[in-house]
Amino acid sequence: MRELKVDLGERSYPIYIGEGLLQETGVMFLKHGIGTKSPVLLVTDETAGELYLRKVEDALAKSGYRTGSFIVKAGERSKSLSVLEDAVTAALEAGLDRHSAVVALGGGVVGDLAGFVAATYMRGIKFVQIPTTILAHDSSVGGKVAVNHPLAKNIIGAFHQPEFVLYDTATLKTLPEREVRAGLSEVIKHGLIWNAEFVDWCEIHAEKLLSLDPESLEYALYEGCRVKSIVVSQDERENGLRAILNLGHTIGHALEAVAGYGELLHGEAIAIGMVGSARLAAKLGHPEEIHAVTKRIFMKYGLPTSIPSHLDTEAILGAMMHDKKFVEGTMVFIIPTAIGTVEINKNVSTALVREIVEELKEEG
Amino acid sequence: MRELKVDLGERSYPIYIGEGLLQETGVMFLKHGIGTKSPVLLVTDETAGELYLRKVEDALAKSGYRTGSFIVKAGERSKSLSVLEDAVTAALEAGLDRHSAVVALGGGVVGDLAGFVAATYMRGIKFVQIPTTILAHDSSVGGKVAVNHPLAKNIIGAFHQPEFVLYDTATLKTLPEREVRAGLSEVIKHGLIWNAEFVDWCEIHAEKLLSLDPESLEYALYEGCRVKSIVVSQDERENGLRAILNLGHTIGHALEAVAGYGELLHGEAIAIGMVGSARLAAKLGHPEEIHAVTKRIFMKYGLPTSIPSHLDTEAILGAMMHDKKFVEGTMVFIIPTAIGTVEINKNVSTALVREIVEELKEEG
Repeated sequence: MRELKVDLGERSYPIYIGEGLLQETGVMFLKHGIGTKSPVLLVTDETAGELYLRKVEDALAKSGYRTGSFIVKAGERSKSLSVLEDAVTAALEAGLDRHSAVVALGGGVVGDLAGFVAATYMRGIKFVQIPTTILAHDSSVGGKVAVNHPLAKNIIGAFHQPEFVLYDTATLKTLPEREVRAGLSEVIKHGLIWNAEFVDWCEIHAEKLLSLDPESLEYALYEGCRVKSIVVSQDERENGLRAILNLGHTIGHALEAVAGYGELLHGEAIAIGMVGSARLAAKLGHPEEIHAVTKRIFMKYGLPTSIPSHLDTEAILGAMMHDKKFVEGTMVFIIPTAIGTVEINKNVSTALVREIVEELKEEG
Repeated sequence: MRELKVDLGERSYPIYIGEGLLQETGVMFLKHGIGTKSPVLLVTDETAGELYLRKVEDALAKSGYRTGSFIVKAGERSKSLSVLEDAVTAALEAGLDRHSAVVALGGGVVGDLAGFVAATYMRGIKFVQIPTTILAHDSSVGGKVAVNHPLAKNIIGAFHQPEFVLYDTATLKTLPEREVRAGLSEVIKHGLIWNAEFVDWCEIHAEKLLSLDPESLEYALYEGCRVKSIVVSQDERENGLRAILNLGHTIGHALEAVAGYGELLHGEAIAIGMVGSARLAAKLGHPEEIHAVTKRIFMKYGLPTSIPSHLDTEAILGAMMHDKKFVEGTMVFIIPTAIGTVEINKNVSTALVREIVEELKEEG
C-alpha cells in the first residue's frame, strides 16, 4: 500500500492506494475518528454499486457503523440538482446528522455529487472517497465538488476536502477498456503539466498500463495524485497556480457540453483539448515538438486527437463563453511551453481559438 | 449611520445601518474593492423588487457596474433547489464570472437563496446583503445560507460571509405590521439569550419600535446584530456556542414545517418556541419568572404565544426529529436559565418535549 498526504493545513488528508483496501473501510473509518453513533450514507452508481456496495456495507457493519445507500444511474446526467434533492432525501431517511459521513463509492460523477451532498447537507458534514475508476484519481485530490446546470458543467459547487481517500486498485480490473484509456488521459495530463520524465515513463509503459499491470498502475496513480496534490497544496481555492490543472479542459468541457454529456468521455474530450492546447502553443511561438509528442502519446493510448466533425464550431465556441475559465471578457488558456511545463495565458483571442477548433476538426 | 464590525478574522465584514443607504450602493461597492468589469446579479423578491430594485440598479450603474436581476416570488417556497437552478440560469445569462458579486435585496428568504447562489456559483463568488426587513438583521450576521428540501428546512446550505451589509432603515417603513412584529421577535430573542437590560429596553420601547421610530429602530437593529456578531465571532461554524442563537427554533422550525411554510411567519413560530423553552426551563427547575416575562413581552408585541390547535402534535414531534439540532439520538434544546442567559441542554427527553407541545396548544 502506498500512502500520499495531501497537504492543506487543517484540511490535510491521506490517500491510501493499494490492492484489497475495500475490506478495510470500517477499520479506516475508526482510524480517522468517525463516530459509530451517526449513520453513514453510501452514494454509488449502478455499476460500482452492483460490484462493491455490499462489500463496503459489510466492512462498515463489521466495525459497528449503520449505513444507508443512494444509488444513481451511471453517467454525468446524475450530477443534477434534482438528483441532489433525491440524495438529500436518502440522507434524511437514513437519519444522517452533523457527525455523519457521506461516502462516494464510484468514479468522478459519484465523487462530485456525493461530495456536494457532504459539502451542503446541514451546511457541511464529513466526506470519504472510495474511487473505483482511474479518472477518479484526479477528482479525489483537491476537494472540488459540483453538480451541473443545463447550461454549464460543474457550475454549482464547493470546495470540500475528504477525511481520507481509499483507493483499491482491485476495483479497476472491472473497468471497460474505453474507460481505462480515458482515465489514463488525465494521468498523462499530470505528466504534461509538471513532470516530463513521467510523460516518458507513460509512453514507455503504455502497454503495461493499458493491460492494468498492478505495479505500473499503482505507480501511475500515485504519481498522478502526487502532482495534483503539489499543485492543490499551493493553491487550494484556485486563485492562481491551480488553473494549470485545466490543461485541455477549456476545449474539453465545451466538447462534452456540445456533444451532450455522455457521447465523449471526459478523458477523451480533454485529450482532444490537450492536442488543441499544443497547437495553440505552436501558434504562440513555443516548440512545434510539443504538439508532435502530445498527439503521439494520446494516439498510443488509443485516445481521440481530433474533434468529431459533426460538432458545430459556433456551438463549441459558445459553450466556452460559459466556461468558468472565461474571466472578465478575456479568454484564459493553459499553454504548454515544453513537455512537462505549462503557463497560464490570459490573452488568447477568440479568433485564434476559432482557428484551433477548426484545425482540430480536420486533425486526423 | 452606525457601523458594526463582524469579527471573523480574514472573513470579517462591516454592517452599515442608517437611513437612505440604498443610494450609496455603488459607492460602497467601490469602497469594498468589487471590480466594475464583472457584472453583478441582484436577487430580490416581487415585493422588495417593486420598491427598491430600480434604485439599487441606478446606484450601481452610476458607479460603473453592469447588473442583471433575478426576481423570485415572496415567501419561503422560493428557497428551493428549482429556484436555485433558475437563479444560476440568470447568473449565466448576465455573464457572471469569478469576480462577480451576488446581491441579496430583500428579507431572509432572499438572503438565504442569494447567499447560497453566491456560495456555490463557480464554487463561491462575492456576496453583498441589502436587507429590507427587520427579521433580516438576524440572517445578515453569520453567513448561514441555505435552501429548503421538501422534508426539512435549511437542510442544504453553506457558510458564506458577505463582503458587507447595507441596512437602509428607510426600507422598513413599507413593511406590513405583521412582519414588523415578527421581525422584532428575533430582535427580542437576542436580548433573551444575552442581554437582560436590552429585554427591559425592548419592553419599555415596544410602542416606539412597533411604530418604527427611527432612532429606536436603529438602536434595536444595532443591538440585535451586535449580540449575534459576538456569538458568531466565537463560533463561526456552529460547533458550540452558536447553538444558543437557536432559542425557540427547534419548536419554531417544526411549527413552520407542519403548518406549511407561510401560515406562520418565522418570527411568530419562534415566539411560540421561546415561550415553550421558558416552560421547559421551569420543568427543569429554573425560575418560573422566565416564562412569565417571556410570555408578557411577546404578548406586548402582539405575537402568538401558543400553538394553533389544529396542528398535529405527532407531526410536530416528527418534524423535530429531522431538525439539524437533533444529534445522535439526543434532543438538544436551548434553555433560558434567567432572562438574558441560556444554556445548551443536550438531554431533553422526547416525553418532556411532547408535554410542552401539548401545553403550548392550550396556552392562551
